[in-house]
Amino acid sequence: MNMDYLLKTAFINPFGENHREIKQIIEKFTTLLLEHIPITYYHEQSEDNYCPVLGEIPETGKPLSEILENLGKILKGSLNPYQPQYIGHMDSIPTLMSSLGEYISSSLNNNMLSFEMSPLFSKMEVQLIQHICQLFGLGKGAGGVMVSGGTLANIQALCIARNRAFPTKDMGLHSYSHQPVIFASDCAHTSLQKAAMILGLGSSAIIPVKTNQHAQMESNDLEEKIRECLLSEKKPFAIVATAGTTVTGNIDPLQEIANIAKKYNLWLHVDAAYGGSLVFSSTYKNRIFGIEQADSVTFNPQKWMYIAKTCAMVLFKDKNLLQDNFRISAPYMNETEFVNLGEISIQGTRHADILKFWLSLQHIGIEGYDALIDQSFDLASFFTREVKKRDFLELATEPETNIVCFRITPSNIASQNRDQWNLKLQKFLLQEEQIFLSLPIFKGSRWLRAVLLNPYTTKKLVENMFKKIDFFIMHNHSQI
Amino acid sequence: MNMDYLLKTAFINPFGENHREIKQIIEKFTTLLLEHIPITYYHEQSEDNYCPVLGEIPETGKPLSEILENLGKILKGSLNPYQPQYIGHMDSIPTLMSSLGEYISSSLNNNMLSFEMSPLFSKMEVQLIQHICQLFGLGKGAGGVMVSGGTLANIQALCIARNRAFPTKDMGLHSYSHQPVIFASDCAHTSLQKAAMILGLGSSAIIPVKTNQHAQMESNDLEEKIRECLLSEKKPFAIVATAGTTVTGNIDPLQEIANIAKKYNLWLHVDAAYGGSLVFSSTYKNRIFGIEQADSVTFNPQKWMYIAKTCAMVLFKDKNLLQDNFRISAPYMNETEFVNLGEISIQGTRHADILKFWLSLQHIGIEGYDALIDQSFDLASFFTREVKKRDFLELATEPETNIVCFRITPSNIASQNRDQWNLKLQKFLLQEEQIFLSLPIFKGSRWLRAVLLNPYTTKKLVENMFKKIDFFIMHNHSQI
Repeated sequence: MNMDYLLKTAFINPFGENHREIKQIIEKFTTLLLEHIPITYYHEQSEDNYCPVLGEIPETGKPLSEILENLGKILKGSLNPYQPQYIGHMDSIPTLMSSLGEYISSSLNNNMLSFEMSPLFSKMEVQLIQHICQLFGLGKGAGGVMVSGGTLANIQALCIARNRAFPTKDMGLHSYSHQPVIFASDCAHTSLQKAAMILGLGSSAIIPVKTNQHAQMESNDLEEKIRECLLSEKKPFAIVATAGTTVTGNIDPLQEIANIAKKYNLWLHVDAAYGGSLVFSSTYKNRIFGIEQADSVTFNPQKWMYIAKTCAMVLFKDKNLLQDNFRISAPYMNETEFVNLGEISIQGTRHADILKFWLSLQHIGIEGYDALIDQSFDLASFFTREVKKRDFLELATEPETNIVCFRITPSNIASQNRDQWNLKLQKFLLQEEQIFLSLPIFKGSRWLRAVLLNPYTTKKLVENMFKKIDFFIMHNHSQI
Repeated sequence: MNMDYLLKTAFINPFGENHREIKQIIEKFTTLLLEHIPITYYHEQSEDNYCPVLGEIPETGKPLSEILENLGKILKGSLNPYQPQYIGHMDSIPTLMSSLGEYISSSLNNNMLSFEMSPLFSKMEVQLIQHICQLFGLGKGAGGVMVSGGTLANIQALCIARNRAFPTKDMGLHSYSHQPVIFASDCAHTSLQKAAMILGLGSSAIIPVKTNQHAQMESNDLEEKIRECLLSEKKPFAIVATAGTTVTGNIDPLQEIANIAKKYNLWLHVDAAYGGSLVFSSTYKNRIFGIEQADSVTFNPQKWMYIAKTCAMVLFKDKNLLQDNFRISAPYMNETEFVNLGEISIQGTRHADILKFWLSLQHIGIEGYDALIDQSFDLASFFTREVKKRDFLELATEPETNIVCFRITPSNIASQNRDQWNLKLQKFLLQEEQIFLSLPIFKGSRWLRAVLLNPYTTKKLVENMFKKIDFFIMHNHSQI
């Protein structure tokens, strides 16, 4: 393959020489994408052999027509989150500004590692995060960084909490005779176990705290667990409260937990990956009151703010801790008054996720997000009422966000069979209506889970789904 | 803001209702981008006040015309890597397929967390990584995962090495009386100190090994350092060799280091974030021979393969270690025969970085990458010869990749002034020719660094640059 050909086709030409061709190619990609979105059904994803060249690296580059043909197959084999029947996961459809923002930011290919490599985006990130910190009420000394996903946000928050409680930044954890431990509810996200494992604390460092019937942390049990640890071989240093649990979307009593954290001088991290978006809702923001007392917060606009993934951040009440308890400086970077973001965040080279977020905020505004969240709550209330109408259905918890977890509860059968019947119902809804509910384990058994994020999901669709559930129960009545 | 308006404008409508408008919007974004690329000059990025609303979150969504106007300012304030004079960093221009791939994958918004949420992309990632493992010669049992950047790749590799050497996955590092340590050359990347800090080993766990005059690890000193540690309070468990150092692009003697790793039963990690791309070069792949003996490898197609960032991966000779020494399973995921990638990688929710990589490989092919790497080496040789022609210039090392590090060496002045004069020269080239060289610290002083990645950078441009350097020396002769 000769260089002339590559310089004409493989890149956007810096001198504008191939721009007409590139416009045509982009149009073709757009057409393919837009044609795909309305016609794909959820069940198609399970058929396997769409694209036979997934692992292939060809000797010679292929013509665009062949690539587009394969891309069509790839689209068909992928999950299509646009379908209003896809209501099983915290995976939202992305804003239009996300798609365009990623197109622009990947074309610019700036690097968030250093100010020199991303002069504008570095500033945009710092300023926008400062603004978000104010919305959360974290105070004037607050700040944070973007990271590629909520797991990394939790890792960085707990790393700084660990380094602050124990001087481990340079010397490490060996030679501590007691295990440093963290308290989190038994409904908290497993990324906490992963974080503890990576941080050298061991996954056993996450001490599970009991939850009440609504998946909220029991503050009495929290205090009891802390006292037990203080009497034993363990060294408590942090509490993680969850605002929006993964399975049922419930919110821990943040204010009570904050008081306990103060009493025992423990770091308070709030994992608001999901629920943090409520800060944009005039009606529901009071549900996360207490978050302003956190030492650190995980917040993922990639969920309820409809930003394409990844778009996540970790915020700190005292941004100086990023310098004092985390920063590893890099001698190959130019000195600058502006702190290079790569030195104070878990990643080094990083994509400018901030642009798609900024564009979406500009396009939709606070009012728009307020309306989207309101509509989402309305649908969840409607959904919840439909569950409550039926005595053969049971709610896992009383919903506090837009997630509703429920199951059919045939009265006289063993719990093992109950799981089986809920699996059957899940498959039935997928087959008959292409409606996808997920089937998570919650407190030991399977539940059907609806995450009512898609703004195109209607009450009509929910109504039809419950009619199908009624039909399923009627039809299987004798066996259940 | 009412919902009808949002449903018509904020998302790609699942029923195709706004597709015509969306095509028009995408065309406007494309025009703005393509008009921007050729006309921006490097120096413009330093002017500050281009976009006054970087940290703003408006109450009401703004009209598209206003957003586009601000986006124009954002483009102007950003780094423009397309300029052939931008030769200072490992930041390449992205392939056209990267921009389009990101546009498509962010629109699909699939989640690499689980197979259910990314049925096709999960398979694509596993299969393509398997193929890459074979190219590196890692054997049939090899496998890996993509991660958002090389730092995360290094963290995950060293985490698994740590968990394998010490049973720390569940129980953590406390109560070990000796510090586990890792050997790496004094020219290795600072992400290793960051990794050691995060992993609870402490940044002091990276034991620096001396390098020779070409920034390559001295294997004699490595063995000496290992023996010293074995006699002291430290517990060696891993060696990190670098294939493509950050400042000068040099390559450690992989074969020799592999032998030492075997002799002392230490994990061998090769940080081939930069140099790994040589596996695609028929002429230069022998420069990384020995990499096939690594236990783990970091490889970033986001650098010399021109994939938009982030695009990085960590590979393991024994992929079962991902299960045995890393996996944290998530109960909220559906059981599947396919391992959910979020359970075996450092991130959970993750963007499908694999699509842009796959598309670029399909479009450019092995031959195309071979040609790009050849051209890049040619330019580096030409550049190096120009340095060697001039007795007032000095090379930092003999280049082994496409990075050339050099400086002016006025003979009779103190090293502090030498740094100052090189800074002056850097600024002069930026001002006069908009040529950007970076100015890293290497072995205690400042050097000018050229990373000859941009395929549109010509010998003519390099020639002109050296003429300007000659002019600078002539002009300042009396003072230097």
